[in-house]
Amino acid sequence: MSSIKRLSTRSEQFKQTLRSLLAFDASQDESIEHATADILKNVQAHGDQAVLDYTQRFDRVSAATLAELEIPRSAWQAALVSLPTEQRSALEAAAERVRRYHEHQRAETWTYTEEDGTVLGQKITPLDRVGLYVPGGKAAYPSSVLMNAIPAKVAGVPEVIMVTPTPDGVHNPIVLAAAALGGVDRVWGIGGAQAVAALAYGTDTIAPVDKIVGPGNAYVAAAKRRVYGTVGIDMIAGPSEILIIADGSTPADWIAMDLFSQAEHDELAQAILLCPSLEYLDKVEAAIERLLPTMPRADIIRSSLGNRGALIHVQSMEEACAIANDIAPEHLEISADQPQQWADLIRHAGAIFLGRYSSESLGDYCAGPNHVLPTSRTARFSSPLGVYDFQKRSSLIQVSQEGAQVLGRVAATLAYGEGLQAHAASAEYRLNTTSTES
Amino acid sequence: MSSIKRLSTRSEQFKQTLRSLLAFDASQDESIEHATADILKNVQAHGDQAVLDYTQRFDRVSAATLAELEIPRSAWQAALVSLPTEQRSALEAAAERVRRYHEHQRAETWTYTEEDGTVLGQKITPLDRVGLYVPGGKAAYPSSVLMNAIPAKVAGVPEVIMVTPTPDGVHNPIVLAAAALGGVDRVWGIGGAQAVAALAYGTDTIAPVDKIVGPGNAYVAAAKRRVYGTVGIDMIAGPSEILIIADGSTPADWIAMDLFSQAEHDELAQAILLCPSLEYLDKVEAAIERLLPTMPRADIIRSSLGNRGALIHVQSMEEACAIANDIAPEHLEISADQPQQWADLIRHAGAIFLGRYSSESLGDYCAGPNHVLPTSRTARFSSPLGVYDFQKRSSLIQVSQEGAQVLGRVAATLAYGEGLQAHAASAEYRLNTTSTES
Repeated sequence: MSSIKRLSTRSEQFKQTLRSLLAFDASQDESIEHATADILKNVQAHGDQAVLDYTQRFDRVSAATLAELEIPRSAWQAALVSLPTEQRSALEAAAERVRRYHEHQRAETWTYTEEDGTVLGQKITPLDRVGLYVPGGKAAYPSSVLMNAIPAKVAGVPEVIMVTPTPDGVHNPIVLAAAALGGVDRVWGIGGAQAVAALAYGTDTIAPVDKIVGPGNAYVAAAKRRVYGTVGIDMIAGPSEILIIADGSTPADWIAMDLFSQAEHDELAQAILLCPSLEYLDKVEAAIERLLPTMPRADIIRSSLGNRGALIHVQSMEEACAIANDIAPEHLEISADQPQQWADLIRHAGAIFLGRYSSESLGDYCAGPNHVLPTSRTARFSSPLGVYDFQKRSSLIQVSQEGAQVLGRVAATLAYGEGLQAHAASAEYRLNTTSTES
Repeated sequence: MSSIKRLSTRSEQFKQTLRSLLAFDASQDESIEHATADILKNVQAHGDQAVLDYTQRFDRVSAATLAELEIPRSAWQAALVSLPTEQRSALEAAAERVRRYHEHQRAETWTYTEEDGTVLGQKITPLDRVGLYVPGGKAAYPSSVLMNAIPAKVAGVPEVIMVTPTPDGVHNPIVLAAAALGGVDRVWGIGGAQAVAALAYGTDTIAPVDKIVGPGNAYVAAAKRRVYGTVGIDMIAGPSEILIIADGSTPADWIAMDLFSQAEHDELAQAILLCPSLEYLDKVEAAIERLLPTMPRADIIRSSLGNRGALIHVQSMEEACAIANDIAPEHLEISADQPQQWADLIRHAGAIFLGRYSSESLGDYCAGPNHVLPTSRTARFSSPLGVYDFQKRSSLIQVSQEGAQVLGRVAATLAYGEGLQAHAASAEYRLNTTSTES
């Protein structure tokens, strides 16, 4: 029995079927919302003590002071040294490549000077302090530590503070090793909404940060949404997605495995293949049936592909690109012989993987670009996590005396038009004056 | 009687007093939240008809179809032609300067090629469609049309759709003229939460946009907050703020008027002066007392300065800069003889105005930089509105066959470490193969 839907753009119901396939229930759980609001309020009011209480309750870790929950740098270094050589080398290679790529994203202050001496520009500065949330337990991904910490450090953020829960006091050594390699500055063994609150509001022991990034469970997501404004946050990610456009030139097994690599994340993950060849779609479907039983996470893959996956027969590669732009996928693989011609047609995607050798899994770990990408069609208006998320800009305006004579008249005219007379007067004061008095 | 508080950093209560001065109640009105949620739901369900019904109810404008509420380009052109010459010239000069400045912000696609032929980079594309909200009635600011529309057009957005309510059918000709100069593509005479809903979800007549920007009342702000995720939004602005650091070399009247120009916006606006000279603070206070009665908006200025303003005596210019970094003001004037040395110390501000000729009002209208700036301390982590808000990035990853041999091993090692075997297999499929089969 087939594990995945077959669709065709020739069907009259295609558009509607695609829409319902893409839809997922993003509504927020009211009980989680209330519990989170309580935790935030409590940490804001009682600081360290509230964080200690919640950590004892949720993670079964007792400490007399919050300072005891800091995981010292020596522990991360020890974790790094104790990793198997192959794992350590892989993590170091990934960190190095991610760092090199992100260095291309660093923006620099710029100015220009006009003829009358007026200087305009933008000053670029890093954020002062960034909080990085790292989940504990089974969803602990060291790659995610690298992908969040490295852009912040490349941006020049002086202090990156990591928080990660340690249920029953158990630390994850690969996550700690990644903190060491990613350039994290301090690590606290706390998690949940209480850790988000501590980072956003600050406590006696933890100084408040300016932005909080990193994935987390529903409580962490709810807490981040609620502290937004007090601090910046990254996007709240939806389920992960891959869209593959294939021209039929890549081995079908490779494509089947690329679909699996998305589907194995969780049951809401979405994996879709577009191809103009029915014969190739049959091959991929056969590969899916053959390979699925061999996968350790076969159950998750089967439900993800069954519920939200699809093999879609398109009329042309051009049509495939148009559908990709409508879906605006998180990951787009263009598995084709001449991928660039199709990539040129793509306007909306978090990451574009070109050619048969560019599997999404290489991008997830070590190609260099960030794996934190816009999901749920938000690639229409947002971007991968990057150095630009850890820098901000201040306009620079230095008007010369001569410049003020021209600009003052323009501003005053427009200000009177808007009924803002103090604006007008403030501009007019700068007109025709030597202004040596004080 | 003085209209403005006097503070000193020498006071033991200073930090606490400053905190309470900066605080304002940002809590959301529950009745507005409920009304907005209803409007959004209705427009999502009933499209054009719901927008027509709300427009009749709130703006007292009847139309049989939504198409009748489009304001045609000919009407904006007529509005532009009918402006008084001085006003038209001022608007044109402002548009030209804003365009020139923002052209410096346009980012371009970049790639680099590694030794093994692997190509990495980022593709930069404009958003497809942007919605621009422009308030009607007394808060109708043509400068705001320019500041929002021009960066979108410089980014290359093909379609900028403006919505603006026309209560009782009355159009604002300067706003329409600004739409013509700003490069807006279409204008609809609708407003409120119903216009935000139409832009976010689309109706039969109005196609959905990808991002909504522009200021609005509490209903518009609530609607933007709720549609965020379906579309992008700009920041929800808090009350406007100016912080002035003065070394005492600028005429005191100028500084008083600069404070007024912020305070005249509304009663929650905040205007604060920092200066190391007590004598100069006295002069500014005297100027405030003398000039205030002459201002048409004296009542608003008096309450704004009285409630949220302050003249603060600091121990040094260095201390003033440290306080500015803590406040992270929307507008920062450094009204000093050698302003650059102090600007170098500033890390957090929306816009920095250097020197006595750089009044904030010049920046509000025509210096070139954007007047949409981060408020309420968010300059710690966010930036002025810019071209970068209307472009987004897609990672580009084209791994060569040779590159896949190295990256595949690294990715597989890390994927096994995270328990993601399909990720590992997908990377391993690319190892040691000629891959000519399909």
